[in-house]
Amino acid sequence: MKVFKKAILPLKFKANAVACGIKRKNRLDLALFYSEVPAKAAVKFTSNKIQAAPLQLAKNNLKLNCNFQAIIANSGNANCFTGKPGLKDAQETQSILANELGIKKEAIFVSSTGVIGKRLQIDKIKIGVPEVVKGLSISGIDKAKKAIMTTDTFTKELTAKLKLGGKIVTICGVAKGAGMIAPDMATMLCYIFTDIEISKKLLEQALDTAVENSFNCITVDGCMSTNDTVIVLANGAAGNKPVNASGMDYKEFSDGVNLICLELAKMMVQDAEGATKFIQIKVAGARNARDAKKAALAIANSNLFKCAVYGENPNFGRIVAAVGASGAEVKEECFRVKVSDLKKKNINVDVDLNIGKSEAVVYSSDLTPEYIRINAEYN
Amino acid sequence: MKVFKKAILPLKFKANAVACGIKRKNRLDLALFYSEVPAKAAVKFTSNKIQAAPLQLAKNNLKLNCNFQAIIANSGNANCFTGKPGLKDAQETQSILANELGIKKEAIFVSSTGVIGKRLQIDKIKIGVPEVVKGLSISGIDKAKKAIMTTDTFTKELTAKLKLGGKIVTICGVAKGAGMIAPDMATMLCYIFTDIEISKKLLEQALDTAVENSFNCITVDGCMSTNDTVIVLANGAAGNKPVNASGMDYKEFSDGVNLICLELAKMMVQDAEGATKFIQIKVAGARNARDAKKAALAIANSNLFKCAVYGENPNFGRIVAAVGASGAEVKEECFRVKVSDLKKKNINVDVDLNIGKSEAVVYSSDLTPEYIRINAEYN
Repeated sequence: MKVFKKAILPLKFKANAVACGIKRKNRLDLALFYSEVPAKAAVKFTSNKIQAAPLQLAKNNLKLNCNFQAIIANSGNANCFTGKPGLKDAQETQSILANELGIKKEAIFVSSTGVIGKRLQIDKIKIGVPEVVKGLSISGIDKAKKAIMTTDTFTKELTAKLKLGGKIVTICGVAKGAGMIAPDMATMLCYIFTDIEISKKLLEQALDTAVENSFNCITVDGCMSTNDTVIVLANGAAGNKPVNASGMDYKEFSDGVNLICLELAKMMVQDAEGATKFIQIKVAGARNARDAKKAALAIANSNLFKCAVYGENPNFGRIVAAVGASGAEVKEECFRVKVSDLKKKNINVDVDLNIGKSEAVVYSSDLTPEYIRINAEYN
Repeated sequence: MKVFKKAILPLKFKANAVACGIKRKNRLDLALFYSEVPAKAAVKFTSNKIQAAPLQLAKNNLKLNCNFQAIIANSGNANCFTGKPGLKDAQETQSILANELGIKKEAIFVSSTGVIGKRLQIDKIKIGVPEVVKGLSISGIDKAKKAIMTTDTFTKELTAKLKLGGKIVTICGVAKGAGMIAPDMATMLCYIFTDIEISKKLLEQALDTAVENSFNCITVDGCMSTNDTVIVLANGAAGNKPVNASGMDYKEFSDGVNLICLELAKMMVQDAEGATKFIQIKVAGARNARDAKKAALAIANSNLFKCAVYGENPNFGRIVAAVGASGAEVKEECFRVKVSDLKKKNINVDVDLNIGKSEAVVYSSDLTPEYIRINAEYN
C-alpha cells in the first residue's frame, strides 16, 4: 500500500466547490462529490436522537436505493432542529441537483454542517448548484475538501493506493471536524471515495471496522453531534477482480480504509479547538474489549485529567478516579499507570488493569482556556 | 420547621477540630464529631469502583455494627489508592480514637478527603487524636465544619428544627465540596446529625430519598470522586415518640433531611471552582423519571453548553444536541426550550420534552478559564 498525504480522487470521480453565500462572503461553502458511474455506498450516522434533516433524508434513500452518484454538502448551516421545513429544504437541494446532473434524486446524498436550529438559505443553494456542477473536475477535490470545513484550521485528507491482482485501487478520504468538540456545528463529516469493485456487504463490513477503531476512538469533550456522518462510495472503476469474500484482497482494502479513517480521526484531534497537546491513551489488561474502551474513554473525557495535561501537572489520581468511575472492572491492587513526559506535545498514557487480555487505544486533547474562549464566543 | 443558616448540634452531640499538620501549617485538618450516646446510622457512598481505604473500612463496620458514636475526618489526604498500608492507616486511626474515647472501634467512622495516592501521615494523626478529643464541645462544630474543607471557599452548613409531638428535634448538616469537580481531592462529604428517635429502616429511607434529590442532582464536571460519603447519625436524645412508621412525623423529618441535603448540594455548586454562574436545569414532559434526569444531567455536563453560559451566548443548539445524545426519548417536533437572561448570575433552563409527565431538576455551573487554571495547577 502506498499512502499520500493529500486527496487524490479515484477513477471516474470528480468534485468541485463554490461560495454560494451561506458562510461569510467569498468563503467556499457548497461542495459536490460526483461519480460518473453508480457507486455502492456504506454509511455510518451519529446515534444522537436529534438527527439533522439531511440524515433523515439519507436514511430514507438508503432504504429505496443501493446505488449512489453524488454527495452535496454545505457548511455554515447544519439544517438541524429545523422540522418539516428543514426536511423540505434538504429534499429541494436533492431535486435541484438531480435535475442538473440528469440522475435520479435517490442517488444523491445531501449533507450539512454548521449552526443548529436555523433554516437553510435554499435560495442561495439554488443559485450555487448549477455553478458547482458546471465546474466538476478531478482537481476540484482541492476546493471541495476546503468547502466542508467550519472551525477546522487545516484540511483533513489522505489517499491510499493498493494493487489488487495487477489493478491499482485508490481509496481517498476527506473529512472535517475540529475534534468532537462542536456538536452545534455538526462536528464530524468524512467522505471516502474508492474505485474498487466490491460487494456491498464487504464494503459495509470494512467501514464498520474502520469507524469503530477510529472515529469512535476520539474525543475532545464527549459531546455528540447531530450531523456526524461517514460515507464510503465504491464505483468499481478500477476494474479489479470483484472482491466478494474475505480473502487477501479484502484484507488489503480493509487495511486501507482503516488507515484512512484512523489518520483522519487523529487529524481531527490534532486540530481540536484550543488544544495544545495530543494524547494517546492505551488501556491494556482489561476483562474484555468493551471494558478497555470504556476505561480509555473515561480518561479521555475527564475534564480534570485534561486540565492536568494542559498544566503539565502529573496528577495521576485523576486517571485512577476516572477509570474507577467508568464502570469497567478494576482492582486497585492490579492497577498500573504510566504517563510520558508532560512537557512534550505528544503524550502517551498507558494503563494496565492486569485482570484480562483486552486492550483499546483512544485519542484526546487537553482542555484549555482557548477552548473556552472559542466556545463561549461562537454564535 | 425552622431553618437556621448555621450548624447547631442536636442534643448530646459534640465536635472539635485541630491542626495536626497534614495540610499546610496551622490549617485545621482533623475534625471529630461525637455523640455521647450510641446513634443509628445511614450511609451513602460513591459508586466509584476505586474506593478509598476509609470507605472500605466503613463498609466492613456497617456489617458488624448498628450503633455509631463518632466520625473522625481528616482533610489534605484522601487515603485512596494506597493499598493495604492505607487500610492499615485507617484502622490505626480508628483504634487510637476508640482507645481515647473509651468506645468500641466499630462505633467509629473514619473519613478522609484530599489528594489521591499518597500515604496518610499517621504519626501526625496519632498526635492529633488526643488533642481533638480533649477539646470536644457543642460549639466545637464551628471548627469542625472548617476542618473538612479543601478547595471550598466557604463553609456549608444548615440546621432544621422540627416539633414532633411537643418535642424539639434538631437536624444539623455540614458538608464540604466545591462541586463534583475535584475527584482527586475526594470531593464531597456530608455529615448530618440528629437527635430524633427513629427506626434504622426509616432513617435509611429518608437519606436515600434526600440524596437522590440533592447530591445526585448536582454536577460541575461529571467527574466522580473516590471518597464521596453522606452519613446521618440519629442518637434519639430528643425524647420524641419513636418514629417507626411512615406517618406525619416521618414526613416532617424526611422533609427536613431533604431540605438540608438540597441546600448543602446547592452550596457546593455555588462554590464550584472557577464558576461565575449558578444554573438550574429543569426537564419536564419526559417519558419517565429516569429519562428526565438523564436529559437534565446531559445538559448539565455538556462542556459546550457550560462554555456558552460563561460567554452569555444563547447558543441553544447545544442544549438540543446534549439532550439528543443523552439516551432519553425525544421527539424533535415536541421539544421546547427556554433559557432565562444569560447576563444574570442565576440561570434557569427549562426544557419540555412534551411526550410524558415526568420531570427532574438538576444544578450545575459554567465552565470558565478559572476552572482550568485551578485544575491545571492543583498538585
